[in-house]
Amino acid sequence: MHDDPNATCPVARALDLIGDRWSLLIVRDAFDGVRRFSDFQRSLGMSRSMLSQRLQALLDAGVLAQQPAADGSRYHDYVLTPQGQGLFTLVVALRQWGEDFLFAEHEPRSQLLTLADGQPLAPLLPRDREGRVLAATATHVVKPATR
Amino acid sequence: MHDDPNATCPVARALDLIGDRWSLLIVRDAFDGVRRFSDFQRSLGMSRSMLSQRLQALLDAGVLAQQPAADGSRYHDYVLTPQGQGLFTLVVALRQWGEDFLFAEHEPRSQLLTLADGQPLAPLLPRDREGRVLAATATHVVKPATR
Repeated sequence: MHDDPNATCPVARALDLIGDRWSLLIVRDAFDGVRRFSDFQRSLGMSRSMLSQRLQALLDAGVLAQQPAADGSRYHDYVLTPQGQGLFTLVVALRQWGEDFLFAEHEPRSQLLTLADGQPLAPLLPRDREGRVLAATATHVVKPATR
Repeated sequence: MHDDPNATCPVARALDLIGDRWSLLIVRDAFDGVRRFSDFQRSLGMSRSMLSQRLQALLDAGVLAQQPAADGSRYHDYVLTPQGQGLFTLVVALRQWGEDFLFAEHEPRSQLLTLADGQPLAPLLPRDREGRVLAATATHVVKPATR
């Protein structure tokens, strides 16, 4: 690990856990209220074996937890842990980038709206601690001194 | 496509383009100033063939563009397009989630700092248009009426 420059990079470590399309689609569905294996399967059109594997990986990663089904049935629900809830910002960032660059102007698309007033969210923008918007060129990455 | 509920989802469409670990590590490196094939290879430790394939996919996706090397050599530089620059928010979101949940308190890690004053960035948080922080439970996804 000490020879791997990615070992100390929080971006790389995040991607090790959730850096694939299926894992993040499962997380997206969990934010939308999907909790049951069969409902994930219906939403995502994945094979049972691949869905099982990805759900287990998300359990192992501490992103999802299993709990007894809310309806008292013998099934388990998959719910986001606090660490999983922390991915809301990432899912919103993916959504906003998709909206900005990957849809034609009037192309139908799902929208994320506030419950309070039905408005779209504000654009997520990296800012400094005084609230000034930062371009990537106004930042730099500093690696740890000792590896 | 009309039977696929993911066809109208900006999250899914974004993940179709950049939803894998290697693509996002390449984008991260591009933000850090890496431009040359051999430098990506050294940073990421990928095989030449896999790196070629991912760079081509990012060119095809409009995230990277090739341009003549800045030093006038016969090589090409890979640079972020405006669409690629738009991924800065996503990379920052990945980094902050990694920092928040995947490192022990004093574990060495790289830091993203402002050039102006060397401070960490503010935490990215989804907000409504009046600036109020929104939990996921204060939002909902509305699918397009016609599919």
